[in-house]
Amino acid sequence: MSEVSAEQQAREDAIVNTVLASFDGCENPRLLELMRGVVTHLHSFLRDVRLTEEEWSAAVAFLTAVGHMTDDRRQEFILLSDTLGASMQTIAINNEARGDATEATVFGPFFVEGSPEIGSGGDIALGAAGEPCWVVGTVRDTEGRPLAGARLEVWEADDDGFYDVQYGDERTAARGHLFTEADGSYRFWAITPTPYPIPHDGPVGQMLDATGRSPMRAAHLHFLVKQAGYRTLVTHIFVRGDQLLSSDAVFGVKDSLVRDFDRQPAGTPTPDGRVVDGTWSTTTFDIVLAPEQP
Amino acid sequence: MSEVSAEQQAREDAIVNTVLASFDGCENPRLLELMRGVVTHLHSFLRDVRLTEEEWSAAVAFLTAVGHMTDDRRQEFILLSDTLGASMQTIAINNEARGDATEATVFGPFFVEGSPEIGSGGDIALGAAGEPCWVVGTVRDTEGRPLAGARLEVWEADDDGFYDVQYGDERTAARGHLFTEADGSYRFWAITPTPYPIPHDGPVGQMLDATGRSPMRAAHLHFLVKQAGYRTLVTHIFVRGDQLLSSDAVFGVKDSLVRDFDRQPAGTPTPDGRVVDGTWSTTTFDIVLAPEQP
Repeated sequence: MSEVSAEQQAREDAIVNTVLASFDGCENPRLLELMRGVVTHLHSFLRDVRLTEEEWSAAVAFLTAVGHMTDDRRQEFILLSDTLGASMQTIAINNEARGDATEATVFGPFFVEGSPEIGSGGDIALGAAGEPCWVVGTVRDTEGRPLAGARLEVWEADDDGFYDVQYGDERTAARGHLFTEADGSYRFWAITPTPYPIPHDGPVGQMLDATGRSPMRAAHLHFLVKQAGYRTLVTHIFVRGDQLLSSDAVFGVKDSLVRDFDRQPAGTPTPDGRVVDGTWSTTTFDIVLAPEQP
Repeated sequence: MSEVSAEQQAREDAIVNTVLASFDGCENPRLLELMRGVVTHLHSFLRDVRLTEEEWSAAVAFLTAVGHMTDDRRQEFILLSDTLGASMQTIAINNEARGDATEATVFGPFFVEGSPEIGSGGDIALGAAGEPCWVVGTVRDTEGRPLAGARLEVWEADDDGFYDVQYGDERTAARGHLFTEADGSYRFWAITPTPYPIPHDGPVGQMLDATGRSPMRAAHLHFLVKQAGYRTLVTHIFVRGDQLLSSDAVFGVKDSLVRDFDRQPAGTPTPDGRVVDGTWSTTTFDIVLAPEQP
């Protein structure tokens, strides 16, 4: 901005002020605040980068392509928000740090209502391909009290990197729910998470490609944890040692959510006597819920 | 932001920094600068307004609707840019103030290549309904030298608020081009500009409605002025006294572009002997072009 003359700055300021003032008649105070915020930051962006008219046209064409890629099955604007970190930032803003409460991360597009209840020690795989993984932990509040009967929804991609809903054949696999026991503990079988790419055959994929970024997500297992009186937690756990931890396409990784997944040699007895054909892994995830009201 | 804890701020800062760093491998330095700008300002917006997850969903739904409204004949993203003042700001950035060069304003969606040449003193109306308007002026450079042979394209809506292309019947009306004479002067007949609304039956119209804004544009006559060696000028002139001057839906009005349109009583002789049935108006617009290179 230092190269811009005082006259030019005054002209640009005048535009911002005129646009801001145009919303003065807005009767919804929150909408007014949001529109003022949009205008302030949008114009700051244009002025900071000195956007050219060609670049403006390219931005319009890009957004048009994002709009045309979006339909009932594909939400390219959410992908755009995800890959610009806007989704993750919104989640951070709405899940403020409270004591040692477990951190939230992106919800993702693959949650499905009505997953099967698998019971304590059950298996969510339901036929999904992948190495068995024994997951244990507790759910407590920020005072350290165990929470009995908390509902855990868990879901993940299979070994080929696909969620059940991506097959389009109505299968239910690699998803389920269970409840914590009286001491707040839980345990279930899943499959060891594997990395997969976000859909990248559209304009967002082109943006990633043009900027030298990868569409890959770090391997993860989704959790949605609910208990009355507590803030609902949407999170994942990640696999320590995954090379994608530092380049997750949607910025979902938090250090506090990275877990050891200990691979057990073939033939190692399982905690519940299940007979596994080949290797299996095990991990621990102790969850802390924040109270609903701070 | 003052209510946010240090721990929370650190988490939000960390997301911004991670997203910014994800573009470090971008080999196109300008694209890198643009993406860093988008991320910085987008995240500042989210954090400043403390966007809720519901509002995020509403924003995604709004952009999706804008995308689905856009087709070959309707560009709702341009309307959105226009109504947020982003188009006008981009034009200001790309037409920096230089001496007394005439100010630029929005191009609009209704320019058509290949308009008829009407000749000095000709009439662009070509049958469009409206009060005749005699427009005169000169084209000079910022040193005050008259520019001979400068090309002026002029176009406008008719008395019903429609451009020829909006009728969909391939008519050509209320548009044309001419060239300045040896002394830099020009003169032509047009029609007195009348106000009209931007297309407001889509999501942008809903946004204007929800925020108490009008879709009306102040009455105007478009100019596109070209001369080799000079910066091409895209501008309008506006009608002094128009009540919409202070609430133009796309923020195109500049004080320096407002002109007196003097209405002449029926029967007043015209400068070129044309016989007009009823009132007519006249206005003067002296144009100054900046050199192509500052």
